Amino acid sequence: MPINTMNDLFVATLKDIYGAEKAILKAMPAMVRKARTGELKSALETHKEETEGQIERLEQVFEMLDLSPRAKKCEAMEGIIREAKENMQEIEEDEVLDSGIIGSAQTVEHYEICRYGTLIEWAKDLGLDEAASLLGQNLAQEKKTDELLTKIARSTMHHSAAA
Amino acid sequence: MPINTMNDLFVATLKDIYGAEKAILKAMPAMVRKARTGELKSALETHKEETEGQIERLEQVFEMLDLSPRAKKCEAMEGIIREAKENMQEIEEDEVLDSGIIGSAQTVEHYEICRYGTLIEWAKDLGLDEAASLLGQNLAQEKKTDELLTKIARSTMHHSAAA
Repeated sequence: MPINTMNDLFVATLKDIYGAEKAILKAMPAMVRKARTGELKSALETHKEETEGQIERLEQVFEMLDLSPRAKKCEAMEGIIREAKENMQEIEEDEVLDSGIIGSAQTVEHYEICRYGTLIEWAKDLGLDEAASLLGQNLAQEKKTDELLTKIARSTMHHSAAA
Repeated sequence: MPINTMNDLFVATLKDIYGAEKAILKAMPAMVRKARTGELKSALETHKEETEGQIERLEQVFEMLDLSPRAKKCEAMEGIIREAKENMQEIEEDEVLDSGIIGSAQTVEHYEICRYGTLIEWAKDLGLDEAASLLGQNLAQEKKTDELLTKIARSTMHHSAAA
């Protein structure tokens, strides 16, 4: 699909993050299952529910633009998920698994934080203030999740180092 | 390669970011060539040189651990680069190209920022303070580049909106 205007670029990137959120939603149950501590399991569960809400917000943005929601295969997120799965398979020690899962989950969050940041700037520039506000809600959730994961990582590591 | 300890996980992730930096170094010349404004071209050129220094610092970390530097194919970065290339091909309008390139370059930076952040925490926990300090230098460069790209994005967009 050729991109000729900033609006085209915005829509293409919206389809990309929509594809990314759908892909990670599908991948998350395996991460929840593999997680060892209740704290991490519950953080991932909560974020899975948030992701469902984020997908709905993205659908609202498509509607605002009079478009039907359409996901594009997000090559970046597919690679991030492939790496996360590979990593979970390689880790044989329970004590280390949560650290690996948190590291992978944070690469997911960072990709999304980056994309939402860009989309919000473009939306504002295109005068799509309501879209910017919805995307801002998704961004805030991703940032909060990333911070929570950092917090859990620290307690996980100290626990693992003490074991 | 099985991962049994936090040290194994640190080394595996070091190989991953080493592979990622090497892959992006190879991909950057095409981004520089495609960039329209001198400001973006020069920011990417500077970061290409910084990336060479970052690869050397990663090699020093391998040496500190008595390991020969070994890159692992970084599935996440391969996906991010594939998406960046696809995006550059789809954009047909010069005015929009720089915004697309900046968006893609920022997904690269965010992946790296995330990985270095994690590696630094793990290094400190493993008592690898010198390694943490070298990785911290890479992290600082990635953050600076990300901020510079945001700044260029803003001026690019306003220029493009005015065109």
